[in-house]
Amino acid sequence: MKIVVDMMGGDHGLNTTIPAVKEFVKLHPDAELFLAGDAESLKKEFTESDKLHIFPSETVLPMDVDPMRALKDKKSSLMVGVQAYLDNGCEAIVSAGSTGAVLSAAVFKIKRIEGISRPGLVTPMPTGIKGKYCVALDLGANNANSKEDLLNFAIMGSIYYSVRYGKENPEVYLLSNGTEEEKGSPLNKEAFPLLKDCKVINFKGNCEGRDPVYGKVDVLVTDGYSGNVFLKTMEGTAKMMGNLMKKGFKKNLFTKIGYLFAKSGVAEIKETMDYKNVGGAMLLGVNGVVLKTHGNSEAKTFLSTLNNAYDLVSFDLINKIKKGLKNVQTN
Amino acid sequence: MKIVVDMMGGDHGLNTTIPAVKEFVKLHPDAELFLAGDAESLKKEFTESDKLHIFPSETVLPMDVDPMRALKDKKSSLMVGVQAYLDNGCEAIVSAGSTGAVLSAAVFKIKRIEGISRPGLVTPMPTGIKGKYCVALDLGANNANSKEDLLNFAIMGSIYYSVRYGKENPEVYLLSNGTEEEKGSPLNKEAFPLLKDCKVINFKGNCEGRDPVYGKVDVLVTDGYSGNVFLKTMEGTAKMMGNLMKKGFKKNLFTKIGYLFAKSGVAEIKETMDYKNVGGAMLLGVNGVVLKTHGNSEAKTFLSTLNNAYDLVSFDLINKIKKGLKNVQTN
Repeated sequence: MKIVVDMMGGDHGLNTTIPAVKEFVKLHPDAELFLAGDAESLKKEFTESDKLHIFPSETVLPMDVDPMRALKDKKSSLMVGVQAYLDNGCEAIVSAGSTGAVLSAAVFKIKRIEGISRPGLVTPMPTGIKGKYCVALDLGANNANSKEDLLNFAIMGSIYYSVRYGKENPEVYLLSNGTEEEKGSPLNKEAFPLLKDCKVINFKGNCEGRDPVYGKVDVLVTDGYSGNVFLKTMEGTAKMMGNLMKKGFKKNLFTKIGYLFAKSGVAEIKETMDYKNVGGAMLLGVNGVVLKTHGNSEAKTFLSTLNNAYDLVSFDLINKIKKGLKNVQTN
Repeated sequence: MKIVVDMMGGDHGLNTTIPAVKEFVKLHPDAELFLAGDAESLKKEFTESDKLHIFPSETVLPMDVDPMRALKDKKSSLMVGVQAYLDNGCEAIVSAGSTGAVLSAAVFKIKRIEGISRPGLVTPMPTGIKGKYCVALDLGANNANSKEDLLNFAIMGSIYYSVRYGKENPEVYLLSNGTEEEKGSPLNKEAFPLLKDCKVINFKGNCEGRDPVYGKVDVLVTDGYSGNVFLKTMEGTAKMMGNLMKKGFKKNLFTKIGYLFAKSGVAEIKETMDYKNVGGAMLLGVNGVVLKTHGNSEAKTFLSTLNNAYDLVSFDLINKIKKGLKNVQTN
């Protein structure tokens, strides 16, 4: 199990990644790590061994870097990590750096799986039911997709869901503007029959933006533009409601006393809606486990992403996806 | 001021509309009402006068009626109302019936404003800032739009916002998958320069799904498909968080006591996010004030929609929109 870690990416860089990696090493002594970052800082914290390698980088890509320029900065922690990945037959790479840079490095260096023209960004999203996640893709790797892309998202998303949550034949829905079959954007209407006829997925039809939120959907299929609108609206509304709640409790002495009593109930809401445990977003459709976590990730979030990388490699996700896609092509 | 009311539409029919109309008559004795519905029931509740007319209907369109079939059922309360509207030079029509039926009746009978090929459904949406609304369109009248549609939505939405909230030059944003100018769906990228060059609107660029939720946006421009995803995701997430809150307070004795203390704070959240006061959705781009409220509207919601119809006619919204569109065409 060989995992590359971009130690410098993200808003907090080493402050996030060092404690996360230290914890990860304790949890998974069998994993072999390839750490790309400032050698001096890393050597102070880690001892190199046959299970831990340090790959020195010189620069850090800014969060708003142009994705194509990023590929050229070969001394950046991300690109040093990608090179280590390629040279050592690694299976996973984790970064908190710029999404665009991670995506283009994955597509152009780690390469796509045969049959995939546009990989999709996927993440499990918390729902109103505690412990129940919705796996949604594409969440923004693309700004336009074809009907074939949506079919591939459905197949890859189903396998990802099965692998992560142990449910066979997860229920797949197409994000739409109504639940009836005839609803949808022109793209949706093209994709609907492809999804309906595909034998390796359990397609249940169209759903509306509220359905995944309520916990009705296992796998949500969408083009990257609409998926991004969905993701950010959901995150934004949940955060806004959380803020209103906080403000509500601070209103006066009585509400403050109320908070003291209601604390455990409030904690449960936070836990149900906790985005920190989902283990980052994965680019599905490339030849490896490529995970990107929020730029402002704390150590806890980064650790859960490392753990997720470990699990997905253990479960042999990439080979299962390749097999799944081949099954469709030969059917 | 002549207003038509579809008395039978919606899940609760007369149980909602009768109390709402009674209250409305008290508030606005100057308005002339045209009530379309079951004559026997209506005559028991209302006395006909030169300010109140009853137009007998025989059927009620089901909520899932096919929009084109709806036009043919001329004895339905909606179509009797539309005929009364046309025959009496009315200025507004309000219904809680099927959205599709209301939209097609509006487009094919009341007709579009010159220069508009696809009217847009608009509603003010509550935001995280109390009393601050975001006017978003199209929310689902169309499943595909052109760049010219988006420009017209921006112009009509700005005028609607100014009329309702008294703010000159409201800030217009295009819903996108990023805030940078180069982000967006292919349609967005076509529309962006049109919006940027339009002199009668205050265009501020792209925004993400979270921005209107936080209260940053006055007028949100979007195609009907993405707008519907946005609307339903926001509504669904807000409702889901509200349910989690309720559940959190019911967890145990302490949280129940907490609720008693925190009640006023909770009430304030509910008020901030109250969808009942927004006065229904309007179809912008047709030759009259056409308002559709939720099918499950209660009397309070229906009354606020009637009041909204009254205000929009008083403010001469339709003529202002016609003038605004002409200004653009001659510039």
